[in-house]
Amino acid sequence: MILPEPIQDLINALSRLPGIGPKTASRLTFYILHAPDEVAENLANALQAIKSKTAYCPICFNITSSGREQCEICANSERDEKSLCVVEEPLDVLALERTGGFLGRYHVLHGVLSPIEGVGPDDLRIKELLGRVRQGSIKEVIIATNPSMEGDATAMYLRQQLEPLGVRVTRLARGLPVGGDLEYADPNTLLRALSGRQEME
Amino acid sequence: MILPEPIQDLINALSRLPGIGPKTASRLTFYILHAPDEVAENLANALQAIKSKTAYCPICFNITSSGREQCEICANSERDEKSLCVVEEPLDVLALERTGGFLGRYHVLHGVLSPIEGVGPDDLRIKELLGRVRQGSIKEVIIATNPSMEGDATAMYLRQQLEPLGVRVTRLARGLPVGGDLEYADPNTLLRALSGRQEME
Repeated sequence: MILPEPIQDLINALSRLPGIGPKTASRLTFYILHAPDEVAENLANALQAIKSKTAYCPICFNITSSGREQCEICANSERDEKSLCVVEEPLDVLALERTGGFLGRYHVLHGVLSPIEGVGPDDLRIKELLGRVRQGSIKEVIIATNPSMEGDATAMYLRQQLEPLGVRVTRLARGLPVGGDLEYADPNTLLRALSGRQEME
Repeated sequence: MILPEPIQDLINALSRLPGIGPKTASRLTFYILHAPDEVAENLANALQAIKSKTAYCPICFNITSSGREQCEICANSERDEKSLCVVEEPLDVLALERTGGFLGRYHVLHGVLSPIEGVGPDDLRIKELLGRVRQGSIKEVIIATNPSMEGDATAMYLRQQLEPLGVRVTRLARGLPVGGDLEYADPNTLLRALSGRQEME
């Protein structure tokens, strides 16, 4: 049986999203079909707005509403301008903000160095990062790229570029996740937790 | 940090879908943000079409493109009109069609009897089912509601209503799933497989 075209179209469009296979896509489609009209409408409107009403902050390159000169964090004079946290993606900013533990400013690279995928320093917002640091008010750059191969390589590269500029360069600690179980920790994490062990306060 | 409104809107709209939590919703949102414009456009268009361009077939109540007098299966004179398969939802028709093993016609109930959720016989397309059977050309009604409590209760009710009309009423077989493992089968399934055991061909 061929499904009615509008249904197949929606299944296809949903299947193209990451982590959504054809089964989930058809389950979602039939859910939307049975749900009140506003479910489909709200989603369609939000999708149409997402590209037209957002922009990158010209300072930190985080996502912000379009029409603003800078994002909320860059515009907030209460945020510490001496401390800059470098992340891969806008979602990482969100994750750090949720902790409530960082009151400085951010810089979003929009990716990591990856020779295999052909991503070099010029493809990331590294030039802009160095420019911000050269202005002189930043004292510490916290590199918060992911604890992955590419994230580590990117951190390494950034350190080489940043240290000649006279700023302190730090990296987020690696170790056992809070609430985690030593028994189930992978050997690399455990090794990091060992080598990074700290005096008990 | 408050996310830009268009982003929060899309995260909220996606979170309302079943099986999509806030984390998946924000992952999808940032994916859509980085993806080519057409990803968001195609999805928005498909969502807008889904309600306006589909309708229920007035004979079997399966989903079909709007503007058609009946669905493709009802319109297909090669499908056996003596055999009618009763299912809960349009997706069940799709599942049965994929098997290629049924060449008759369908009837979609749009739900199951559920006293707890207040779903009675009048809330399903049962009256229309009985009307089709009374026309006389149907010889067998295969009840293919889900092998669940409600599906069984609905099947029971339908049998009571259908048998006086002089049709054969059957139900899909229950037993071990093909490729399944006896060791992992739940006791109820195993009991069904035992009691429904068949002579080897």
